[in-house]
Amino acid sequence: MGNSRIIVAIDSQEKHKAVDLARNLSDDIFGVKINWPLVLEEGAGIISKISRYSRAICDFKVADIPNTNRLIAEKVHSHGAYGIIAHAVTGEDSLRAITGVSPDLKLITVVAMSHPGAQAFLNPLSERLIAVARSVGSYGIVAPGNATGIIARLRADAGEMRIFSPGIGAQGGNPVEAIKAGADYVIIGRTIYQSDDPMEAVSRYNAEISASGIR
Amino acid sequence: MGNSRIIVAIDSQEKHKAVDLARNLSDDIFGVKINWPLVLEEGAGIISKISRYSRAICDFKVADIPNTNRLIAEKVHSHGAYGIIAHAVTGEDSLRAITGVSPDLKLITVVAMSHPGAQAFLNPLSERLIAVARSVGSYGIVAPGNATGIIARLRADAGEMRIFSPGIGAQGGNPVEAIKAGADYVIIGRTIYQSDDPMEAVSRYNAEISASGIR
Repeated sequence: MGNSRIIVAIDSQEKHKAVDLARNLSDDIFGVKINWPLVLEEGAGIISKISRYSRAICDFKVADIPNTNRLIAEKVHSHGAYGIIAHAVTGEDSLRAITGVSPDLKLITVVAMSHPGAQAFLNPLSERLIAVARSVGSYGIVAPGNATGIIARLRADAGEMRIFSPGIGAQGGNPVEAIKAGADYVIIGRTIYQSDDPMEAVSRYNAEISASGIR
Repeated sequence: MGNSRIIVAIDSQEKHKAVDLARNLSDDIFGVKINWPLVLEEGAGIISKISRYSRAICDFKVADIPNTNRLIAEKVHSHGAYGIIAHAVTGEDSLRAITGVSPDLKLITVVAMSHPGAQAFLNPLSERLIAVARSVGSYGIVAPGNATGIIARLRADAGEMRIFSPGIGAQGGNPVEAIKAGADYVIIGRTIYQSDDPMEAVSRYNAEISASGIR
């Protein structure tokens, strides 16, 4: 398992690459983020396969009643996942149902999103959502990497919680800028897995982050 | 396919019953509601299997960015699902990504929930969430069947949208009360699938609804 700040996001179009990337990049990345479209394509077994080589973070945007959240988290944990991404907006009890599953399953909580529709309801609630994330003992929060203003604002309230930032690369975010704004991990998709040489792309990103002087 | 107002909710503990129930009850129920824990257990193929006999409603509480919502909805549609349940709180663009997939896939939108945590953020937003649900052309909305006051309040704003109400039976809701308050369909789980005779349980619910004089 690597100690890089880079998490590779794999989408369902790249299902055949998901396990290969986890295996080949294992030492050079922090983990692999997968989502529901990939699981619908491949089944939950894909979580176990990736977990053999790297930290699997299940970006499931879990947003159900406590009992269903718990069942999802138990299943994900049984497949060896490192973390699970869930919404704070469904409330404290729904999140506690996840943290109650196992201390080994990291809860990463959504407190803001980057698409335009997030401005309507979610992002105006960010401060209250982050308070809920803290109160339930979230390991981390998700903050849009292509909106460094949001990262910086959330950083102050995040305390010990790690910040995971998607939207880097093809979606416009820059890894160094995101980390400087306060992100702990940057989530990068297409510019790595669609690269002719994903290992080289990861090395380039790692070098760029190191060269910037960020610890 | 039946024209009852009853939808049977199957959870992951009853995976072996899911397809049997759909087949045996097909004429006497409106459809079958499935969720992520069942899909994590069985794979997405369970949607196709149920769809052979009944209307499969995927209660996935979808709450992601537009592109991911679209990919989830496309997958669900390719397996023959009747409907998909998604959150309004992630905004209009995320919902339109689902309605854009196919007119044959019914969008059923979450505008309120019944667990305590829903009082913190979601339920106070119900009126605005229902406006978003209407504006994107949702086929229906979800309203807690064990909170008839919420159903009645949402009914006025729902317009042509159908109201689907979970929480009936073991969770305290009464099907006749929920329908009288404005629900079009009542979603019932344990008191049907954990019954020694699910067909008899469904018949009893159907008779109770008919006897109440509700059309």
